[in-house]
Formats: sequence, C-alpha cells, structure tokens
Amino acid sequence: MVLSQTTPWQRIAAELRAIAGADAVVSDESERLVYECDGLASYRQRPPLVVLPTTTEQVAAILKVCDRYRIPFVARGSGTGLSGGALPMADGLLIVTSRMNQILSIDLDNQQVVVQPGVINAWVTQAVSGAGFYYAPDPSSQIICSIGGNVAENSGGVHCLKYGVTTNHVLGLKVVLPQGDIVALGGPVADQPGYDLTGVFVGSEGTLGIATEITLKILKTPEAIAVLLADFTTITAAGETVSAIIRAGIIPAGMEIMDNISINAVEDVVATNCYPRDAGAILLVEVDGLAAEVPLLQEQIQRICYDNGSRTVAIATDIEERLKLWKGRKAAFAAAGRLSPNYFVQDGVIPRSQLSQILDQINILSETSGYRIANVFHAGDGNLHPLILYDETIPGSLEAVEHLGGEILKLCVQAGGSISGEHGIGSDKRCFMPDMFSAADLETMQALRAAFDPKHLANPDKIFPTPRTCGEAAHSSIIDLPGEVDIF
Amino acid sequence: MVLSQTTPWQRIAAELRAIAGADAVVSDESERLVYECDGLASYRQRPPLVVLPTTTEQVAAILKVCDRYRIPFVARGSGTGLSGGALPMADGLLIVTSRMNQILSIDLDNQQVVVQPGVINAWVTQAVSGAGFYYAPDPSSQIICSIGGNVAENSGGVHCLKYGVTTNHVLGLKVVLPQGDIVALGGPVADQPGYDLTGVFVGSEGTLGIATEITLKILKTPEAIAVLLADFTTITAAGETVSAIIRAGIIPAGMEIMDNISINAVEDVVATNCYPRDAGAILLVEVDGLAAEVPLLQEQIQRICYDNGSRTVAIATDIEERLKLWKGRKAAFAAAGRLSPNYFVQDGVIPRSQLSQILDQINILSETSGYRIANVFHAGDGNLHPLILYDETIPGSLEAVEHLGGEILKLCVQAGGSISGEHGIGSDKRCFMPDMFSAADLETMQALRAAFDPKHLANPDKIFPTPRTCGEAAHSSIIDLPGEVDIF
Repeated sequence: MVLSQTTPWQRIAAELRAIAGADAVVSDESERLVYECDGLASYRQRPPLVVLPTTTEQVAAILKVCDRYRIPFVARGSGTGLSGGALPMADGLLIVTSRMNQILSIDLDNQQVVVQPGVINAWVTQAVSGAGFYYAPDPSSQIICSIGGNVAENSGGVHCLKYGVTTNHVLGLKVVLPQGDIVALGGPVADQPGYDLTGVFVGSEGTLGIATEITLKILKTPEAIAVLLADFTTITAAGETVSAIIRAGIIPAGMEIMDNISINAVEDVVATNCYPRDAGAILLVEVDGLAAEVPLLQEQIQRICYDNGSRTVAIATDIEERLKLWKGRKAAFAAAGRLSPNYFVQDGVIPRSQLSQILDQINILSETSGYRIANVFHAGDGNLHPLILYDETIPGSLEAVEHLGGEILKLCVQAGGSISGEHGIGSDKRCFMPDMFSAADLETMQALRAAFDPKHLANPDKIFPTPRTCGEAAHSSIIDLPGEVDIF
Repeated sequence: MVLSQTTPWQRIAAELRAIAGADAVVSDESERLVYECDGLASYRQRPPLVVLPTTTEQVAAILKVCDRYRIPFVARGSGTGLSGGALPMADGLLIVTSRMNQILSIDLDNQQVVVQPGVINAWVTQAVSGAGFYYAPDPSSQIICSIGGNVAENSGGVHCLKYGVTTNHVLGLKVVLPQGDIVALGGPVADQPGYDLTGVFVGSEGTLGIATEITLKILKTPEAIAVLLADFTTITAAGETVSAIIRAGIIPAGMEIMDNISINAVEDVVATNCYPRDAGAILLVEVDGLAAEVPLLQEQIQRICYDNGSRTVAIATDIEERLKLWKGRKAAFAAAGRLSPNYFVQDGVIPRSQLSQILDQINILSETSGYRIANVFHAGDGNLHPLILYDETIPGSLEAVEHLGGEILKLCVQAGGSISGEHGIGSDKRCFMPDMFSAADLETMQALRAAFDPKHLANPDKIFPTPRTCGEAAHSSIIDLPGEVDIF
C-alpha cells in the first residue's frame, strides 16, 4: 500500500484525528515520552503514536484502522501496573483510556454501576458511598489506577480475602474486539448462559480487545469494622494463626503479615509506634459485618491469636484508630525504599498451608544470595510480596536480584502455587509461564487468544513466551512502520 | 475408508473395547435405550453406541477415535439435567462418566477435594462433613446428579445465594479436549495468571471437552443455621421483603418464594401443616454463620418480614424443625404433578428489583392463555421457576405451553435478565439464544468453541442455534454412520 508523500505514522495519525479529534492524538515526541513505561519502570519503550479516545465507537473505529494496516496496539489505563502489561511497542499504537472517565449509570436496587474504563477505582466507591455502598476490590494504587486496568490485570487488594478479586465483581462488559466489532459479554444478572467470556476477558491483560463499558457489582457498606494487630516472636507463629482463624470458619475481610525487616523499616519512616520493633512478625486482621456480629468475631480472633503465641493484640474499631493500625502496612513498600537504594517486588502465590515452609526457603535464598528480603504479604490468600533489597549501582546486582525473584517464583510453583497473585504476567513474567503451564495448556490459551484476535494485534508481546522465544515480538505489520525513529 | 466386513459402529465398538475393556461398551439395543434422554424427557434419541470409561487416559483415547473418524460425541453424567444437554445423537457416541466415581484426594488444610466427574454431588459433603466441611452448591438433584454434570451446567441450588454457583467452587480441572489432548485448567490456588479457562469450561455444557478431574473448594460447615418461614397476603409483599433483607446488608444462604397455588399443592400432597393455605405467598429464608451471629440475623430478618406485612414468622434452628419448614419447598415440583396431568418447568432470571413486575406479567400471560402457572423460585437470585400446568392428552397443549414458556423467557430478557438461571440451554433453549445475545456476541462464543473443538464434535447440537437453523445437527462424519437402525 502506497501512502503518498507522508510517512505511514503521519497518515495513521491523520486517520485517528478524523476519528477522535485533533486533541485526541499525541504525536509530539516529548508528550509521547510520558507513556514509555508503566509501574514496571525497568522496561521502557517510547510509543510512536498515542491516541486517547472518548467513546466505544471511536475505539471501534481506531481498532479497524489497526486491523486494516496490521498495526499492533497496546491499551493503557492509568499506567500503574507492575508487570509491564501496558509497555508500549516500538511499532504499535498506544491507546490510552484516561479520557473515557464517565460513570454511565448507578442502579442501587440491583447493586450495580456501569463505568467507562478510565474511571478511577476509588471514584466508584465515592459515587455510591453516600447511599451506603462500596466497590470491594482495592489495589493499593486505588486512588489512581483505572477500572479498565483493574479488569485487564484482574486486580486484587488488601480486602480481597473475603470479597474476591476484580473478576468476582464484574458482571458484564462492552468490549471492542481486535477487529473492531463491538460485543456485549455477560450482563446485569450473574451466571448467564453460554461461555463465561466475561470471566475470560477479566485478567486477559489487553490481549483480547478493549473493554469500553464495565458493569460492576457494588456491595452494602458493612455496619461495623474492626482491625486487630497481633505481634508474634516468629513469622511461623503468625502464619499458623492465619490458618487457625480460617479453620475456625472465620473469613476476615483481610489478613496481612509483615516481618521484622518490614516492621523496622516502617517504624523508621512513619513511626506508627504500634508495631513492636522486636517482633518476629505482626499480623493485621480486619473483620467486617453487622454491628452485633463484629465484636463477637474480634473476641474470637483475639483468643486464637493468644492461643497461637501472640504477645499482645491491639483492637481498633473507630476509623481513626483503624487507620493508625493500617498506616505502617500501607507505607511498607515506600519504607522499603529507605532500607536500600533499590528494591524488587515479587508477586507469587502459595497454598496457605505451605506458608511457613516457603518463608523458610525464601530465608535460605536470602542468606545464600546475600540479598536481604523483606516480607509483606496478603497472608490469608497465600499471596506473597517479597521485597528484595539491592543497590543498582553495583554491577550485576539487578540481574542477580531478577534471578533471585525467579527462584522464589519457582518455589511457589513447586508448592502448587502461582507465578502471579495480582500483578499479572505482562512483559515481566512471560518466561516463567512454562514453569507453571504445560505446552498443551499454553497452546489452549493461545487458541483462545487467536479466536478473539486472529491477526495477533492486541498487546501481542504480553503474557506468552510463545510462539516466538522470550523477549521477541510476535507480530508483523503489513506496512513498514518505523519505530524508535521520530517520524513526526 | 473401508472397514472390512463389519459395520462402522461394530468396528468402533471393537476399538473402544480395546481401550476401555469389554464391559465398558454398551451396544445391546435394550441397554442403550436407558440413555435415550436426560431429565428433559420430551426429547429422546437412542444412541448408537455407549462407552463408560474409568480413567482420563481412556477418555483421551476414546476422543482420539472420535477425532479420527469424525464421530460427534455427547458426554453424560447421571442424566438429571433439565435442558437436554445430555441428549444423545443419532450418529454420535455417548460417553457416560458414571464409572469415573472416585474421590481422588482430600486436602482439608487448603480446603479442597479432587474428584472424578462421576462422583455424586452429595458424596463430596459426605466425605468431608466428619471433619467439619461441606461442598456448597446443592442442586435439588444432589443425591443423584454428578459433579461432572454440575460442571457442564454450572449448577446452582437453594443455597447458592450466599455462596455462588458451581463456577465459584471449581478451582481447577483436568480436561480432555475434543482432539484427545489432556490439559490442566486452573489449579489449587485461585485466580491464576493467563486466561480463566476454568471459568469458560464450567457451564460449557459438554461443548469444549470432557472434565476428568475436578478440584473443588470445600467450605467450613457453619456453626449455626436458622430457617425462617414468613407468610404474606400477596406475592408482591414477599418479593419486597426479599429486597428489604438484601438492602439491610444481610446475605442469607437462601431465600425462596412459593405462591398460593404451590402452597396448596404441597399441603395436599405432603401436609407440612406449616404453610398457610390462604397465604398469597410464603418466603423461606435460611441464614447461617457463627453461633453468636445467627440469632442476631434471625431477629433482624423477622423484624424486616413484619415491617413488610408478614402475618406470621416461624423460626426453626434445630435440624428437625428446619427440615420440616423446608419439606414443602423440596416437594414443590413433585406436588405440582398432582395439580394437573403434566407440567412444564421454566428457568429464567430477572434483576431482583423487577420481581413484582414480572410476576404480574406472568399472571397476565396465565390468564390470557388459560393455563395455570405455579411459581416456586430462588427469590434472592431473581431465578424464577414458573411451572405451567397442562394436560398433554389435549391436542396442541404441549406446543401452546412451550410457546407460553418462551413468552416468559422473553419477558426475562426484556427485563435485563437471562433465559437460564441454572438448567442450561442444552437442546431446549437454543432457539432463544438470539433473543438474549446479538449475532456478534454469538459469533464470539462460536469462535471460542472452534478454538477448543475445530472439528465441531463435542456435543455439537447443543447451546447454539447457529451455524445451522434451529433443530438441525451441525456436524458431519467422514464415514457413513447409520443412526437409528440397529447395527449390532
């Protein structure tokens, strides 16, 4: 195809301006630099062209342009993802959903809200909290991350033990498929007939299309909430307490463990004065429910903590006291930045019963490698977040730390767990997929992907190591699209 | 392909005997008649050949035979399905999983059980109840229906309001794909990376392959259970009470409504002496939880019932009293058989807020058509089960009643609901799929189906009206396989 005197990207930019308006297309080099990475800043790629549509119809028209010229595309919400799922491509279009930021409808009777993908997670709760409702999934980036990104990554959060992750709260989706068709998946009632395509789409990391309307389930705000902080001399005792609470038939809203390194890091930085510096670990438990029910639950949990060796158990019920107990946990990742010049956050899952054993093995890996590892994690879900501390100015340290992170993931898989709890695979963990899935399993996923995206244009480099080798792009354009060179 | 002197089915039977043993193959005509229908007895088809494998490897070898000769196949568990999902084909193999009846492992620490597909639903709870656990989904056929069938149909039940349907309790699957490959979907930890193929497979009605190992989540048995029976002068008041209970932030284990016709039918048959014959409707509410929590919940629900016009509220906490209150509900379908020579059960879903409006519309349909309709339903989920009463000896009555059932489904779709709550689409409701889904939506599902089953051999006539017209088979064999004729 001959595209007259203009460069191919200039021609495409003109088509996109005709679709979405002149202000929707970012071609200026410095403006494009803003989009070169997401929360995984170690991977960077400047996109050749960025478009910010506002409607489903614009997204459909844009994907039809991509389909016509075989241009791969990457969708991006707020760019807070931690696995490089929104990493741009050198020869692909970046489609940013941040201007699709409207809450389209609120139905309190049926407890659902329809939003555009650029709506920020925390806005949903803000919009319905006055009427006594909230949106449960709460990734720690919730004041900035978008619902579209949450859908792509199937995001979790501290309170997902009881209420589940994003997939448990998405009832339906309007999706633009990679060839530009608009389809409705799921809908206002749960468990519809036909294949559960809503469930497939949630967590598909932008590889099956772009969600342009999302129907979310909202929950009744609990009447009462209590937070318990128990401290233990060993992390093993904290882990066993978690199992004992679950065994008692209690499902807290959240259960978090922080180890001694993390406790001291947060006390150095935010001085909660609640986290004993000599504790082997602390356990934070949040319970919610009816006003008459919560006091009973907190008593029962307190008893279980003491039965399992807790030295002290603090309980907070009013909001200020609760936030005080949570303060250190919320500051944990930031505080880790004070412990060493750099840190690497891993995200893996193990069956809850293996908690103590895996923590011991991580400890051994830390000692043999010489890198300190802080452990802060969603203990109730078995979702570990080891923070490996290092100094990137020491040559080879990043590589060593990435290797160590990989060894931890392999421990998780060996224990029957998973290489990702809530951060996704993205660009970062593609090489570990064969550790977790057989060739036949991965082929089945790829067959599904091809059914949605036969030309392999939707975020093609993400999730899978195949069909090409790890790190190599798996697509090709029918027109010659220059990448890194500035073509405007 | 020339198959020597034997008929094609004889040759295939010989291959299947070599795979699964002589006693695993049913070719005798009278024995095959047993399998000619499932719970939807109005559709019947004698299968030309039946095989009952015992292992995953046998299933894989059998599907490779089907693939080689392009023989379509239908999987069947206990055959209790109500939508004809296990209806055999005149030219297809019937694969019965009832001999795959082993509980393979029980892991109480991680609250999961691995079973073969022929394991009966109630056996799972029986196997773990001594240790204080149970399996939540409880279709009314639970003492006979199989877990494999539950997975195929994404079965629900009376207690699924709080705990969700089958898909919420399946962590992983070993599946034999239609071409004979064995894959693992999901696994012991929830929310794994990659596409949620477990979620797609659950509810796929046998069209994507055969599950041969199923990892189920088990729950801690609640400490306490209470059942409340409230009676109302109108069904509208009962419906409004359901909404008021949910609005109060309470999620009961189950909430069921029975109308006046149903109440009188069960009192005639089982004489519970608890269901007032003059009530417009009764509401049954079951709550469960900690021993200290349940009394508070029952008090609160009782108050809400009275606030919404209930005349009396009976409460039962010990098991015998609870079963007495449930007795009439459990007998409702059987009792309907006494009201008229025949009845037709419909299964549709509406958003809970539309309950009163739809019940009014069903009442109008009943009056204009002249057919009485009894309503017994999972009110908390908005899952209706209207029972249309008729006499099949009156010419044209079955057709009229099927038409009336279709009109009710269309009302459900118009209200933003669904054409099936828990019985599946199967053979019965394929023609209604276009009422609920657009052509693009159905094409997306078909593309997914083709990714799993490119030769379209797995239960090919079910779920979808396309690619052929309704009621016509959508497959072809490469060998000439006689159907109805007895070839043995």
